[in-house]
Amino acid sequence: LAEDVPVGDLGLATRYSELAHEMSERIREGVLRPGDRLPSVRSVRRTRKMSPATVLQAYRVLEDRGDVRVRGRSGYYVNARKIGPMAEPAASEGTPKVVEPTVRDVVLDLVNAVKSPDIVALSSAFPDPSLFPLARLARALHAAALRLTPNSIYEDLTPGNPELRRCIARRYMETGVTVPIEEIVVTSGALEALNLCLRTATRPGDIVAIESPAFYAALETIQRLGLRCIEVPTCPREGIQVGALAKVLARHSVKACWLMSNFQNPTGASMPDEKKVELVRLLEKHDVPMIEDDVYAELHFDPVPRKPVKAFDRRGLVMHCSSYSKCLAPGYRVGWASPGRYAKDVSWAKLTFSMAATSAAQWAVVEYLKKPGYNFHLRRLRATLLDRQGRMLKIVHEAFPAGTKVTRPSGGYFLWLELPERVDAMKVYEKACARKIHVAPGPIFSAQKQFRNFIRLNHGIEWSPKVGEAVATVGSIVRSLS
Amino acid sequence: LAEDVPVGDLGLATRYSELAHEMSERIREGVLRPGDRLPSVRSVRRTRKMSPATVLQAYRVLEDRGDVRVRGRSGYYVNARKIGPMAEPAASEGTPKVVEPTVRDVVLDLVNAVKSPDIVALSSAFPDPSLFPLARLARALHAAALRLTPNSIYEDLTPGNPELRRCIARRYMETGVTVPIEEIVVTSGALEALNLCLRTATRPGDIVAIESPAFYAALETIQRLGLRCIEVPTCPREGIQVGALAKVLARHSVKACWLMSNFQNPTGASMPDEKKVELVRLLEKHDVPMIEDDVYAELHFDPVPRKPVKAFDRRGLVMHCSSYSKCLAPGYRVGWASPGRYAKDVSWAKLTFSMAATSAAQWAVVEYLKKPGYNFHLRRLRATLLDRQGRMLKIVHEAFPAGTKVTRPSGGYFLWLELPERVDAMKVYEKACARKIHVAPGPIFSAQKQFRNFIRLNHGIEWSPKVGEAVATVGSIVRSLS
Repeated sequence: LAEDVPVGDLGLATRYSELAHEMSERIREGVLRPGDRLPSVRSVRRTRKMSPATVLQAYRVLEDRGDVRVRGRSGYYVNARKIGPMAEPAASEGTPKVVEPTVRDVVLDLVNAVKSPDIVALSSAFPDPSLFPLARLARALHAAALRLTPNSIYEDLTPGNPELRRCIARRYMETGVTVPIEEIVVTSGALEALNLCLRTATRPGDIVAIESPAFYAALETIQRLGLRCIEVPTCPREGIQVGALAKVLARHSVKACWLMSNFQNPTGASMPDEKKVELVRLLEKHDVPMIEDDVYAELHFDPVPRKPVKAFDRRGLVMHCSSYSKCLAPGYRVGWASPGRYAKDVSWAKLTFSMAATSAAQWAVVEYLKKPGYNFHLRRLRATLLDRQGRMLKIVHEAFPAGTKVTRPSGGYFLWLELPERVDAMKVYEKACARKIHVAPGPIFSAQKQFRNFIRLNHGIEWSPKVGEAVATVGSIVRSLS
Repeated sequence: LAEDVPVGDLGLATRYSELAHEMSERIREGVLRPGDRLPSVRSVRRTRKMSPATVLQAYRVLEDRGDVRVRGRSGYYVNARKIGPMAEPAASEGTPKVVEPTVRDVVLDLVNAVKSPDIVALSSAFPDPSLFPLARLARALHAAALRLTPNSIYEDLTPGNPELRRCIARRYMETGVTVPIEEIVVTSGALEALNLCLRTATRPGDIVAIESPAFYAALETIQRLGLRCIEVPTCPREGIQVGALAKVLARHSVKACWLMSNFQNPTGASMPDEKKVELVRLLEKHDVPMIEDDVYAELHFDPVPRKPVKAFDRRGLVMHCSSYSKCLAPGYRVGWASPGRYAKDVSWAKLTFSMAATSAAQWAVVEYLKKPGYNFHLRRLRATLLDRQGRMLKIVHEAFPAGTKVTRPSGGYFLWLELPERVDAMKVYEKACARKIHVAPGPIFSAQKQFRNFIRLNHGIEWSPKVGEAVATVGSIVRSLS
């Protein structure tokens, strides 16, 4: 085309071909899709200071290439994708090799795996979303949308919707925990609550005590805030060893703990009440705040809920964080912190970090909780998770080699497997990936990359024969490596 | 009551009276409200390990006090608040004095002021929420809720809903800015985007260049991340002085800039395109990333939108942040970052900080944008803001003393007033507060507490004669102080 243009007009030629190329790229990328109208000549003229003739010339190039067509006087529209006589070369194939992946690579991989329908995501951190009352929540969201007034936008600003905070305070009360409404700060899920609490309790360079193994998001947050961590020995049944923590607190200037006292991720450990009391007295002695991640609280298999460490806190040291994401409303991003004596600081951090949680989502939860049904839903959810735990344990028992150890948590949806000692979990991860099965390898749960021969499996994902086969396949991979 | 209990039962007496006191407190606080059922004897027995007799004894105490009543066999219910023969003493009165408030106190005050219907919040950072298509958004939210499937929760995880990101990329394209869909990270409003971008671009101790005056959230974020800032001279009409910034970059190891190139908060300044080009070339020379806060982009009074600095960026240095909160959907908390070469890092930061933005809110914006009407809404919104700007300027001209200076921005909804030199904006703030009028005093926009004699007024709040009178009152306060 450039050949048709006299040399003196090269500037113009560049401009129209640049525009043509750019629009063509947008079409290729899908920003503009078949049927979409190209920006009008008038608007391009304005935003790019091009003459109408230049714009039209660019659009005619696209028309010649078959990318767009004119529709009467209404403008240029993107054509349906042509299938020419010759296909484009295919993308390169083969499973990408895992070369010493960092925690970040593996975690990103875990998150992306859940998006892909042909991967069995035993690595997932989420329970099967079809276990949640999505239709009833949609109705609640609609009811919420209808009652949103201009003023509710203000009312729902941080610290959050007053009615939602009352619902949260009532639930605390029912579990035997005293939390006044004023202490509760609504957040965009528990993860934001945990991040804001940790940042409030620490300064860069500080030391934080965590469980070993610990939830990988804790490791990431600690790193991002420029903190250091100490991994404290943790029993896969009864949680962090308070004696070991006592020694750590005596020796190091620890500024905060980040712990999960119920259904810990990844072990599923739950601390008995007496250990919780012991822990909180130790924290009081050293005046160290504790960030308590309690997102699985409602997923208990015992008839009675487990109390958080917060229940035994007398001095406002425990910053309790939870959400509705794992028990009621995944995707709604409604969580909260009850940060004890740090409540005002956390509220301020939330306000200046992200202003507020979504108004309609806060109201939707309130609307849902107004009607009976929550406890019924929870009972069914717990029963399903327990049932799936049994099924997965059965296959683990059958398919994994002798020397494998496995937890049997009394809540949540994770199994924590210790593989025979010579088995490298990263190898298991890699080989399973090649079979389109993802598992969470032990080292991502440790700052020192411990747990080389551990994996975490999620038994709360959508159950199908394919899942059972996938667990068996992982078992045979482990067998082949041991 | 304790007198009725034999001495040997003092432990029991303590337990039931503690429970009675606790429930009574929950009723007083409103966690339990008139008509609410007290936790069942069975559940309290479980969570507190109390005998049914103890629980019943506690509940009978509450019944005697008139706090609750029994309804047949279904349990104990909270009574309507009794009005006894004698009222409780009233809360203490009088306007709290402002004693050297910190930025935090004042900013919290500004946020709380918008929640109070009897305060004229000229200090507000929000436009009148009744200017937004809330009913149409509610319908869009309902449509969104109905199409949410278990899988959409995964699809809408960070980097965000693909369809929403396409809408954002198209809008960029219409303004003459090239941003591929892959670069866009959906966030919980622009504020979260800005925070995540700044944190991604810096390490504690780093220096950040900002405008003088600057948006107070920038100051707060810089402080919270352990950063230092340099305030660069800024023209209230044409924005940051690029020459001054050049000197700063030559002398100091600046690691990032946080700037608003369009309708800057608080001045309303907009940089001409040639200054934007000059700025971005300067950043390229020093390889310094720029966090561009462009939340008011859609609120332009000129017929043509203003380009962001991002439009002239060739090396991916500009991290452009914006949202739908100020132009379409306040309270929905749907914003985004287009962080150039930092896109992957910002996406990771979002994922590990708060996982995702609310699914339904992302879809609601998509559903709204699918139908025509957005541009019509924007034209009306801009016209209203311009109209209110005129009204407020008129009153400012009439009511403020000679020597007052005021901006006339070509977009957004802020007026920036320079008061006669001897007038202390904190005094104006304090005196206006006493009259239930809030203004934003200059020093909150500066790390060094400059702008002692400046105030920011919001002309985009709901307009009424009361607002006009409030502006005139502020004028007379300024007059009395000058």
